[in-house]
Amino acid sequence: MTKADIVIIGGSAAGLTAAISARRTYPKKKTLLIRQEKQVLIPCGIPYIFGTVGSPEKNLIPDAALEKNGIELLIAQAKKIDRKKKIVETTEGDVEYERLIVSTGSVPVMPPIPGFDRDGVMAIIKDVAFLREMQQRTEKAKNIVIVGGGFIGIEMADEINKLGGKSITIVELFPHCLSLAYDEEFCIEMEEVIRARGIAIRTGTKVVAINGNSAVESVQLSDGTELEADLVVMAIGAAANVDLARDAGLHIGLTGSIAVDRTMRTSDECIYACGDCAEKVSFFGGGPSPLKLASIATLEARIAGANVYGVKRESPGTVGVWSTAVGDVALGTAGLTEAMAKKRGYEVVAVSLEGPNRHPGIMPGAANTKLKLVFEANSGVLVGGQVRGDSTAGEISNIISACIQKRMTAEDIAMFQMGTQPALTASPVAYPLVNLAEMAIAQMGRN
Amino acid sequence: MTKADIVIIGGSAAGLTAAISARRTYPKKKTLLIRQEKQVLIPCGIPYIFGTVGSPEKNLIPDAALEKNGIELLIAQAKKIDRKKKIVETTEGDVEYERLIVSTGSVPVMPPIPGFDRDGVMAIIKDVAFLREMQQRTEKAKNIVIVGGGFIGIEMADEINKLGGKSITIVELFPHCLSLAYDEEFCIEMEEVIRARGIAIRTGTKVVAINGNSAVESVQLSDGTELEADLVVMAIGAAANVDLARDAGLHIGLTGSIAVDRTMRTSDECIYACGDCAEKVSFFGGGPSPLKLASIATLEARIAGANVYGVKRESPGTVGVWSTAVGDVALGTAGLTEAMAKKRGYEVVAVSLEGPNRHPGIMPGAANTKLKLVFEANSGVLVGGQVRGDSTAGEISNIISACIQKRMTAEDIAMFQMGTQPALTASPVAYPLVNLAEMAIAQMGRN
Repeated sequence: MTKADIVIIGGSAAGLTAAISARRTYPKKKTLLIRQEKQVLIPCGIPYIFGTVGSPEKNLIPDAALEKNGIELLIAQAKKIDRKKKIVETTEGDVEYERLIVSTGSVPVMPPIPGFDRDGVMAIIKDVAFLREMQQRTEKAKNIVIVGGGFIGIEMADEINKLGGKSITIVELFPHCLSLAYDEEFCIEMEEVIRARGIAIRTGTKVVAINGNSAVESVQLSDGTELEADLVVMAIGAAANVDLARDAGLHIGLTGSIAVDRTMRTSDECIYACGDCAEKVSFFGGGPSPLKLASIATLEARIAGANVYGVKRESPGTVGVWSTAVGDVALGTAGLTEAMAKKRGYEVVAVSLEGPNRHPGIMPGAANTKLKLVFEANSGVLVGGQVRGDSTAGEISNIISACIQKRMTAEDIAMFQMGTQPALTASPVAYPLVNLAEMAIAQMGRN
Repeated sequence: MTKADIVIIGGSAAGLTAAISARRTYPKKKTLLIRQEKQVLIPCGIPYIFGTVGSPEKNLIPDAALEKNGIELLIAQAKKIDRKKKIVETTEGDVEYERLIVSTGSVPVMPPIPGFDRDGVMAIIKDVAFLREMQQRTEKAKNIVIVGGGFIGIEMADEINKLGGKSITIVELFPHCLSLAYDEEFCIEMEEVIRARGIAIRTGTKVVAINGNSAVESVQLSDGTELEADLVVMAIGAAANVDLARDAGLHIGLTGSIAVDRTMRTSDECIYACGDCAEKVSFFGGGPSPLKLASIATLEARIAGANVYGVKRESPGTVGVWSTAVGDVALGTAGLTEAMAKKRGYEVVAVSLEGPNRHPGIMPGAANTKLKLVFEANSGVLVGGQVRGDSTAGEISNIISACIQKRMTAEDIAMFQMGTQPALTASPVAYPLVNLAEMAIAQMGRN
């Protein structure tokens, strides 16, 4: 029987990160990672397989990180967790653990729409062989309907569109794509970018049936439209993969994920969970959070990995930080949108600014960056920010994220020393983050 | 006689920002900015005039910011501050003030080298007419020596080099260019980038004489070399422009700048100073700071502007945040380098990491980013960070700056939720800032 001090089930972003953090925190503990995949996909890179990157094999997390950090690997399927014996039963034999970290991820949601099981209706499964087949079908397809206008939906649409000669339509239930993470003005801008690239978008409507014989032929929408389709891609979200944990008798939380406290400990004191499979609470108010993001999964993994032999870290809850890009236009978000904050009962002051990301504005590569910050009006604390810009938008949203996580106020941000450079950033006078903080201070009457 | 509640002398980054902050804080106060320049140059953009941007007229701060913020403008030279009468005497008549902000900037340092006054030896003066002439001379020159390998020196060298057909040499006193802001390994990399572009660099040597008849013909170095030169550009730093303040009897500090407290108030309680002309203390230890940067000037301006009718803000001291770029390679820095921290008596743990800034690493635009963080070993507090990367390096150094300014620890940073995206950032598992924090925790034995 294999034996390790720390055993991790799952080898994607959460599992790998948890293993690394565990090794960093407990370098003397033998650490073993069990995963069923021979090759692990970079989860956020999956849409790019279909266009820019070209194949699943080019979108892999290299196993070098395991070797470098002294993490043992067992490629096997975990069949059962025997909590009494502290054993994971796998297809390659039993593995005894002292501490166990469950990071079994999520599976795509398939809604019970009539016809969803027809040939040609595909969700995005994180498996090399599956994606190779999906890629082949994508290449052959002429009329493609993408169900869901979240970031995976729009990235999939844009990447498939790069193959050329296809008619692609995104169908989104809400009035706008991306509306769970961006305020309307940002969503509308991104929709315009997508449409300008020849992709159709239908919002405020949902798929009520998938028609055809054995294979899909069309998609019926609630607004009465029927869209011709030989491929339907489901991108409406993912559900926690909790089968193994539930079978082992671990508590399952309100959102259907493995119940954990803020130390990422499950109802079994020797078992931790992190990533898409683990229950989450919001950074804002502490209520249940439906978010499933790599920025959350890897944070939880660093907490779980560090805590297995004693509590060192506690999760502050999900902030919601991510970015996306279509062509030269990138969007980044962190925290609550203005609409979301109001809906949750916050009294907010929101400020926006648009200006060149270089100075002078005729520098090569100059483009306008639009930034919006949302502050809680009574405390002046930053609760959210959104950015539309060039390739720096990802890191700009990470500046915002750092400010949110330290609960910085508008005054804190107005006092920043921010480096500026003609070829790299906005001007020192106009630097948007700092200027927006000053504008918010004035609007909140805090001056 | 003109009269305003708040009068600002100087219209560059500090003066303009101070005026805007004053208006935001005191919207009912009449605010007047006095400056001698008809057109104001973007200070950090000056090197780009000589290459990419093409002329001083294309590198101006637009006056729209004054109009938009309701700031009155008087183009005149301030001749004298009469503190008793609270009047600024100018070439266009007297201006009465209630509160005065002095932001008279700096003038380039001209060392007393024999021959420094020969025709063809030029420092960089922030004046449109002067720079137009300098540009014409640059275009004609064949052999150019740039004295000083700081960021202005290297940006000037690279921009002039874009004109083609010139022999350019940078002469740097220290063993490496940029060594006041970057550790050796970063300096060496940037020197290699510069040399690969056909620019010569001579370090660890200084100019001892500038030879020639009326015009410069060669530059004599302390290592015995004589460099042929028909143009010498002095880029060895700037000295506070304090004539007006000194004549008015305001105290001058240890570094030769206008003495101010942390509220940016001078020795006259109705007069504030900010930017290159104002005395600075370091964020690290509070001792005198020689730094002169736009990120500092605009912070001080936001403090001075907000404080003129009552203390609202205090300066935390100079962090030292800036970035530079040569071709596709950008460097960013915030806070202390490892060498600098050690020299100041800090016990530090420094950690470095290099990895792709996209994921997978074959995404278009992928390049390696190198990041180094410097922590105080006992408290775990971040005291500095350096980055070498693509155009995101500027904003990455701003993330580091935000962390430093809030005195975040390695543990704080290890707990960040950082958004990642294939086309925009490093992978969620490998995100360097967070990984370096974890590595530092282990090295400090804080795990």
